[in-house]
Order: sequence, then structure tokens, then C-alpha cells
Amino acid sequence: MTDHISPFASDFPDMPPVPGVRLAAGASGMRYKKRNDVMLVELAEGTQVAGVFTKNAMTGAPVDWCKSILKAKGSGGSGRGLIVNAGISNVFTGAAGLALAKDTASAVAHLLHCAPEEIYVSSTGIIGELPDKEKIITLLPTLRHKLSETAWSQAARAINTTDTFTKGITRTAMIGNTKVTLNGFIKGSGMIEPNMATMLGYVFTDAKIPAPVLQELLKADVEVSYNCMTVDSDTSTSDTILVFATGQAQHWEVTAADAPELADFRDKLREIHVELAKLVAMDGEGISKFITVKVRGAKSFASARVIAKSIANSPLVKTAIAGEDANWGRIAMAIGKSGEKVNPGKTSIRFGTHLIAKDGCKNPDYKEEQGAAYLKGKRIDITADVGVGTGEATVWTCDLTHEYIAINADYRS
Amino acid sequence: MTDHISPFASDFPDMPPVPGVRLAAGASGMRYKKRNDVMLVELAEGTQVAGVFTKNAMTGAPVDWCKSILKAKGSGGSGRGLIVNAGISNVFTGAAGLALAKDTASAVAHLLHCAPEEIYVSSTGIIGELPDKEKIITLLPTLRHKLSETAWSQAARAINTTDTFTKGITRTAMIGNTKVTLNGFIKGSGMIEPNMATMLGYVFTDAKIPAPVLQELLKADVEVSYNCMTVDSDTSTSDTILVFATGQAQHWEVTAADAPELADFRDKLREIHVELAKLVAMDGEGISKFITVKVRGAKSFASARVIAKSIANSPLVKTAIAGEDANWGRIAMAIGKSGEKVNPGKTSIRFGTHLIAKDGCKNPDYKEEQGAAYLKGKRIDITADVGVGTGEATVWTCDLTHEYIAINADYRS
Repeated sequence: MTDHISPFASDFPDMPPVPGVRLAAGASGMRYKKRNDVMLVELAEGTQVAGVFTKNAMTGAPVDWCKSILKAKGSGGSGRGLIVNAGISNVFTGAAGLALAKDTASAVAHLLHCAPEEIYVSSTGIIGELPDKEKIITLLPTLRHKLSETAWSQAARAINTTDTFTKGITRTAMIGNTKVTLNGFIKGSGMIEPNMATMLGYVFTDAKIPAPVLQELLKADVEVSYNCMTVDSDTSTSDTILVFATGQAQHWEVTAADAPELADFRDKLREIHVELAKLVAMDGEGISKFITVKVRGAKSFASARVIAKSIANSPLVKTAIAGEDANWGRIAMAIGKSGEKVNPGKTSIRFGTHLIAKDGCKNPDYKEEQGAAYLKGKRIDITADVGVGTGEATVWTCDLTHEYIAINADYRS
Repeated sequence: MTDHISPFASDFPDMPPVPGVRLAAGASGMRYKKRNDVMLVELAEGTQVAGVFTKNAMTGAPVDWCKSILKAKGSGGSGRGLIVNAGISNVFTGAAGLALAKDTASAVAHLLHCAPEEIYVSSTGIIGELPDKEKIITLLPTLRHKLSETAWSQAARAINTTDTFTKGITRTAMIGNTKVTLNGFIKGSGMIEPNMATMLGYVFTDAKIPAPVLQELLKADVEVSYNCMTVDSDTSTSDTILVFATGQAQHWEVTAADAPELADFRDKLREIHVELAKLVAMDGEGISKFITVKVRGAKSFASARVIAKSIANSPLVKTAIAGEDANWGRIAMAIGKSGEKVNPGKTSIRFGTHLIAKDGCKNPDYKEEQGAAYLKGKRIDITADVGVGTGEATVWTCDLTHEYIAINADYRS
């Protein structure tokens, strides 16, 4: 561990209450000392839920649990509570791990007077160990007592692990004439190349959206938010994004994801997902530069995203940017190794607005000093056009620094 | 740049002459100061050549040149010379780059009295710049004058870039009653995840092997040597492996790759490729530990290799090993993110002989101290059985250290 704080650290926003949502945080003492590590959320009856999870084959027991309760109700479901612990992740723990997730859900259900299948569970932290069930369950009455409409930052902070700041986004949207609130928070800093989701992210709204509609919106949003972000190319076994709609707002019934009256809500929901994803990259372990990679001219969005991720995950690109070295040849290398269709003779590369290479050669008008000066900034935009089509994608990442090594060479100590 | 030397650095072996091969090294002064950076090899008339090259789409002009002259003669061809420069790689240089490679070949051909299409060219170093053709051509007469049967280490050393030691392997083999020699050397340290080849490697033998047979042997060897090795998952645009057989040895004619009399030669040739590949991983930028990843129980060799590379390329696995932290959960994560078929409930993980996890759970008999003690060693063996089939593969890599960042954050300065 180090004392490094992301230079992109921002204050957690003031979040208004979301009718139907109450939160609390507490300290179980199971791994971290002197800090909260458990979060409980109570949701109003009738809350609709959508979820997307990691594609890592070694899924954690909490992910298996959440998937099973969502699946039991078709695409999306209902929910009354959410319990999350940080420090130990309950992954690679076999039948004992699944029993623990279920028992935890049952204990929360008992407290909130609902069925265990209405309680969502997440865990993050060390793989291969079991969280201490007794410590969580012992804490539950205290947490219930502390439930409050305003404890957003406390709840969000409790689920951090190597995060250096607490990450949240709030928006309001109009559905017809009714104003609804959307609050989202997320934890994540390392082991980040989400595949259908990111570490642990939760979005809450009082909008009244049926679960299948919510799920459809979430699936589309994930493709252009969490799946366009990477820290170190490692995909967590616990990645989870859940969206909860309490239905407390009094607007007309929404029946379809593409309903015109949902336009503003759709925009704001996507905005939250995209901004949460960017916040995770901005807290990438050891970050000194926030990097936006845009790829254009690919044969499709999917192909552009593969190329952009090939650049964003290249250790040589990431270290060059950390060292403020305008070594753009490494970007050409990363485009080429992607395995996607590209036209070398039509490929161009930009740092910010500086056209460094075009038509497969260095731009004769480009001067090394321009790139060097540009890379002194904290936010670096790389744009590549690969000259074969109209597909484009944007991916967010961070550089690779000594701090990343310092944080990860001794994470468990 | 740093003063870091690989702890696995070894002396370049004493190499006997290979009849039909003469070498020389010289200093062009184009980028490096006070060291040789150009190597010339003269090959006897009738030398047979096989080659395998990078799959990176942004191939360097020298790779394009070598592929074109090999292709012009079918699978494999003949050769009279090889010219290699280090420091500037002639990649992403468009038509000017290709013209430069061809002009260099022509100048060497003029010197050695042969056709330009019999001269192989490689360049390694910075991408996006043109090597200084005049400086290379001016050096050629001196190089020809210095050609010698014994200048193996000088030639091999001249093509190094960030390499911290000079890497070569020598063997002898019997073909019938005739003893033949095989000498190989290789450069490579970063931007290393070969795809059909590694950085720049050359093997020379006096055996009399037709080019198509040589090509068939090389293709098979590459799959279990260079393609099973990775430093940082970045694939160079210049990867090249060439095998030259001068045919000076007086043994019976060889007509097929699987000929029984070729058994010993096949073994020794593969041994050279495997050992050269391991030497590159042992000189991986910033290395402190040499890591061998074995994956068993996969559905095929190809699948096992994908899983092994997912472990070998994981920044979190590599940093944990650098930090001597037995964080085996990251190995489980890397297996899971590979996208290959695995059975989590049957998966086992070993550090050396220590069985850490089995049947998808931590082995209750495993003690943390065992893993911690094991990781204090310099050579780390990771074995994973993924429980679905009989496919297995071995991949070699190195850890990810502060030195890697130090070397690469400022490579061009």
C-alpha cells in the first residue's frame, strides 16, 4: 500500500434523497481496521432491479447469487435490499461461499421482512477467502437502526478497497412532468477491464420502470460505459452493476425502453454510467494521467473498441505516457497487434489536436516538441483513424506508473 | 534507461564456426554512441532459408522485404547475406521505408556479388523513424573486410537494444554419421509477445536441408518456443526468426521434415528455439523473477496456451510475484478471464510443488508461509489444472517491476 492519491480525486457530490432508498454503513472489523466496510441499502416494496455481471468464468459466490435471483424472475426482477462488504471477496470459495452469500441474504431478509431472493449481495477484496459471516450478521441490527435517506457518501465510502477517492454521480430527469432523481456510486481501482460490467456499481432512482425495461436500458449503457474503460486489462471475478428503481415517483406508466417520454431519463441514466466508468479510470491504481483513446475509421463499433483497448492496455503505451515521452510508434504497434482490420497506409494518429502521423508515416509538419509539450498535461487524448470504415469507439484508461507496482506488489500485506 | 541487469544474465557461449557463415559487426553512429549497431552475415552459395515473422498488422519495411523475397521463391528460399541494424526500426515509414530496406539489400548484394533478393534485412529500435541509409552503406566495406568465422558474440551483441545481456545457444547434431553445428542468437527484451516469431532471432547451421523442409521444422518449433513466451503482451512490428542452412556438411540428402535421420537435428533445432525464447523472457525488461506457467487439463494445446498467457500477461499476477506476495487468487482471476473453457469446481493451482487450491477452493492443508517462502526464489513455477480435458502448454515470462516502468517511461531519452 502507498499514500498515493489520484490527481483526479474529486469530492463526492451532495446527493438528494431518492424516495424509497435508505442506506447505512458500519464496521465489521473483519479485515480493515478503523473504517466502515459493510453497506446496507433498504429498498421500498415494489422496487424493480436490473443487473449486469462479470464475464470472468471464476465468478464470485455473490455474483452467482445475484444472477440466480434475477434469473428466477426473468430478465430483471424485484428487490428489497442490498448488502455489500469490502476487504474479502468470497470468490473461489466453492459451496461454502455460496452458502455464505445465501445466509447473508437470509439474515438481511429477516431484518427487512422480505424473502432472501429479494436481497442482493456483493463482496470485494481478496480472492480465495471467506468473509466472516458472523461479523456481518452481528452488525445488521446496528445498520438497520442507522438507515437514513442521506447516508450516500458513507455507504459509497464503505465499499472502497484500493480506491483513493469515493466516486458518485447524481442527476435529475423529467419523465413527462415528473422530476425523478438518479444517484449512482461505484468502487473500483485495480483488476479493471470490465466485461459486461465494472467492479461494484449501484444506481438508484425513484422512477417507476418495469424491470425488463430497466434491464434493456442497462445492457445498452454498459456497452458504451463500463465496457469502454480499462485500468490494467485484468477482469475482476466480482464485477457487478445493479440499477434499482423504487417506483415512488408519480409519473405515467412506462412500458418500453424506447418510449418517447423516457428520452430524458435514458440520457441521464447513460450519463451516470459513463461518468461512473470514467471515475473508475480516474482512480486507476497509481494514475498520473487520465487517457481518452478514440478510434475512428474501423469496420464497426466493436472493432474500434478492440483497437482502442489494445492501445489503452498496452504497457508500453501506458508507460510512455507516464514518462511524458511522445513515443507514438508504440501506438502504431498497439493498433497493429489488435488483430482487427486496419489499413496501415491510411492510418493516422493524433495527440490532442496534433497530427503526428498520417497515411502510415510521420507527419513531416509534426515537431517532437509539440508532442512533448502536450504530454505534460494531465488529460491525454489519443485519436487514431485506421482507414477502413466508419466504426468508432472511445475508451478511457490511465497510465502505468511506479505507484501501480507499489500498490500491487504488496496488496495483501 | 537504467543500470538494471537481469539476474538471469548469462555469458554468451563459445560458438564453433559454422562452415559457410562469416560475420562482422560495426558502429554506424546513427543513434547509439560508442557501440556497434550493425551486423553483417555472409552466407555460402546455396544456403537455404526459412523465416517466420510478426503477425502485427503494422509490419516494418524490413519484415515486408524479407517476406517478399521468401515468398518469391515459394515456401522458403535461398540466401547469401543478412544485414541488421539496431536503434531505429524502419516501421511506419511508408514507401520511403520499403525503398530504404531494398536499397540496403542492393548495397549488400553488390558487395557480396549476388542478387538483392538474396539479402535479408532486419531493423530494431524506435518506430516511425528511418534508419540512416548512408551511414549503413558507408560502413559496408569495413564490415566485409572484418568478416570472420568466429565473430558470433560481436554480431549478436551489435543487434541488442534494451537487452541487458547477449543471448545465444549452440548445439551439435548428428545427421547420419555426419556431425553438424547449430548456432543461434537472439535479441529481445521488451515489446514482447511474439505472434509467430520473436524480436530478432537467427539460427545458422551447416546442415544441408532444403528450404521447404527447413520452413516446416521452423513453423512447428515456433509454436512451442517463441509463441509460448511473453514479457509484456506487446507484439513488436519487427519480429523475425530466420534459419539459415549453408549445406556445407557432407551428409546424405534430406528430403522430408519427418525423415528418421533428421531426428537428432530436429531435437537440437527445437532445443535452440526453446532455449532462445526462454533467454528473451529471462532478459524481460526489469525482470527480477523468471516465471514458468504450466496449464494442464485444458481442452487443447491452443486453449491451454491462451490460459497460460492470460496468467503470464496479467499485471496483477506479475506484480504479486515481483512483491513475493502469494496472492494466488489473482491466478484464479486470470484463468477465469481467459475466455477459454474451464471448470471452476475442478480447478487446482500450484506454486512449485505446493498445492494451493483444488476443486475450486483453497487447499485446507496449504499454509500461507509455504507460498511466501517459495516466492523468495528467483525461478517461479505456476501450474494450473483447469479440469476439462488433456490439453497442456508451458509459457515463460517474467515479473513486472519498478524497473520495467523506469526502462519504458523514458525509452527514447
